[in-house]
Amino acid sequence: MPQEFMSTLNTGIKNVRNVLRYTIGPGSISELPNILSSRCKSKDSPVIFFIDEFFRSRPNIISRLSMKECDRAIYVPTINEPSTCQVDKIVQQLHKDGLNKPAAIVGMGGGITMDVAKAVANLLTNGGHAEDYQGWDLVNHPAIYKVAIPTLSGTGAEATRTCVMTNKRIGLKLGMNSDFTVYDEIIMDPELTATVPRNQYFYTGMDAFIHCVEALAGSYRNAIGDAYSRETINLCRQVFLDDDMMSPLNRERLMVASYLGGCAIATSYVGLIHPFSAGLSVVLGLHHCIANCIVMRAMQPYYPDAFAEFWSMVKKQGVQIPEGVARNLSDSQYEQLFDSTIIHKKPLINALGDGYRDILTKANVKKIFEIM
Amino acid sequence: MPQEFMSTLNTGIKNVRNVLRYTIGPGSISELPNILSSRCKSKDSPVIFFIDEFFRSRPNIISRLSMKECDRAIYVPTINEPSTCQVDKIVQQLHKDGLNKPAAIVGMGGGITMDVAKAVANLLTNGGHAEDYQGWDLVNHPAIYKVAIPTLSGTGAEATRTCVMTNKRIGLKLGMNSDFTVYDEIIMDPELTATVPRNQYFYTGMDAFIHCVEALAGSYRNAIGDAYSRETINLCRQVFLDDDMMSPLNRERLMVASYLGGCAIATSYVGLIHPFSAGLSVVLGLHHCIANCIVMRAMQPYYPDAFAEFWSMVKKQGVQIPEGVARNLSDSQYEQLFDSTIIHKKPLINALGDGYRDILTKANVKKIFEIM
Repeated sequence: MPQEFMSTLNTGIKNVRNVLRYTIGPGSISELPNILSSRCKSKDSPVIFFIDEFFRSRPNIISRLSMKECDRAIYVPTINEPSTCQVDKIVQQLHKDGLNKPAAIVGMGGGITMDVAKAVANLLTNGGHAEDYQGWDLVNHPAIYKVAIPTLSGTGAEATRTCVMTNKRIGLKLGMNSDFTVYDEIIMDPELTATVPRNQYFYTGMDAFIHCVEALAGSYRNAIGDAYSRETINLCRQVFLDDDMMSPLNRERLMVASYLGGCAIATSYVGLIHPFSAGLSVVLGLHHCIANCIVMRAMQPYYPDAFAEFWSMVKKQGVQIPEGVARNLSDSQYEQLFDSTIIHKKPLINALGDGYRDILTKANVKKIFEIM
Repeated sequence: MPQEFMSTLNTGIKNVRNVLRYTIGPGSISELPNILSSRCKSKDSPVIFFIDEFFRSRPNIISRLSMKECDRAIYVPTINEPSTCQVDKIVQQLHKDGLNKPAAIVGMGGGITMDVAKAVANLLTNGGHAEDYQGWDLVNHPAIYKVAIPTLSGTGAEATRTCVMTNKRIGLKLGMNSDFTVYDEIIMDPELTATVPRNQYFYTGMDAFIHCVEALAGSYRNAIGDAYSRETINLCRQVFLDDDMMSPLNRERLMVASYLGGCAIATSYVGLIHPFSAGLSVVLGLHHCIANCIVMRAMQPYYPDAFAEFWSMVKKQGVQIPEGVARNLSDSQYEQLFDSTIIHKKPLINALGDGYRDILTKANVKKIFEIM
């Protein structure tokens, strides 16, 4: 039996739910009215559109959504990552406006917007509050039928079974992990990522690269997760080692990398980078994707090949990764960083084995943050 | 705009339907009872099992299906590929036995068995005869809920939207191409392919390799089809260039290659090899996968790299590919071979462009068959 087979542990993940349908290609956003019409019984069946606020001033894009009079557009701000409180407020308003039984929900944006749409779709059919469903398999009823239109590539939110929200009341950042959270349909139109700022395009794209690096280096694996991860990394190389990472072809490739990266993570686990990144998000309020890139400053000992490749991509694309964000902090901040990193037991075991706490002592964790 | 982007044509394929769920790993067949129990309202809700006849004498495998008393096992012979007449007979019998509204259908076997199960699942909810649905999007109602358990890897039947049947009455080999033909669930258990004969394992596995080679060399492409094809080919290389192509790890890899190859072909087209292979099947009665391998004897001018790689895999694994099957045939046989090859317009345009008939003259097609 080959070595590789012996060292691989069972992921324990059973019965993985795929997105039911996808459409891909430049201009494919024009398929949306067709897709929605099959869900709307009449002209009065409303659809709720969650749209990244960036597009509020882009009528040429919004008009292509062919919204009906009875539909509702909700523009989602992206300054902060989603919160349970924000989701609850939206749901409350929809109930008030008699829009609590829409024919469909559309989430058009990056991870934040797609996640808010997922959470609302679950709440409208399940009742209660967002925090009631933070955890694993707590959603009991199928969500409203929902369509994702990613306008930023990398998080894989269009493919995964979670929607991450911060619960400020109890200081928890956790998603509604449920098969019902998975989108029914994805429209991958690379024309929609043409206007993304270069740095943002890189940070978000790297989320796919990074979680697949972590998955492939982990102990809990299977042949399909490995296959998705390998091809995601391959696509990221094509994109980020190319002269023009934002060419039409490269934007289509990165859209596929994001989707397949989401499929990869649905059947595997992240490793060391995501826990540290979560620490930066929770304690310092940094967004997920830029936080991942910052963590890469300290990953040479743990992922030497990916470290070298990551920084060659940064250089090739001339993007800026913040430095020194976790230096000279207070003792209490380092304490918080330690707690919010070390809490991610499964990914850390995946990366370092059961003895991960022997490696990630308080002193070592502080040293790692100081490198960033 | 990069060269590659300009030379790629739109596939015209919209709104691709995925398999809804999958489970993977050694021993995952034991998940079947759980999966079926969610579909069965009571102990008296029957499930119809289509099982490759090979397993009739393998009680240790059959017992793991945990069949209930009300269930029905139909053992599918694999000497001939599926026919419309065979499917109609099965459906007629199920009606007669009051089993026309099963809670679920299971297809456990290779492409033949999985395709028969797909066709029956469509007919039980749509009525009529199998030939009524041969073509594109002729199935009107959702099929019976169905689960695939592949026991042979390569065709991708577990992932595709077709089930190929020969219609002997009108001499046609065509599938029910429909979103309703797609399986709802796949169980990928590599333990089930341990007993496949080596030659058969190779021929069938090569179906995935070959259709992805054709897709990647074609003109009609998109970034997701390319990604699936690339990783499928990568997995085939890992398997067939390894010392032991049937190790547990390699059997799991080939199972994934088959599935992802099916996903690839759902959003792209085959090329030159499949039309010639169809000729061999229709005129000489050769099974699809071995016919593909025979066609590879003549593919050096068209797919030089894949040709070299294919024959290095044949050598490495020491398998036998028949030779000379299409030499010294009658004029009328060559005529038939020509007709049944040239009819596959879309794949041939994908491979050779609109002028494919200038290249594939009768004389040339005969020469190509003679090389085989």
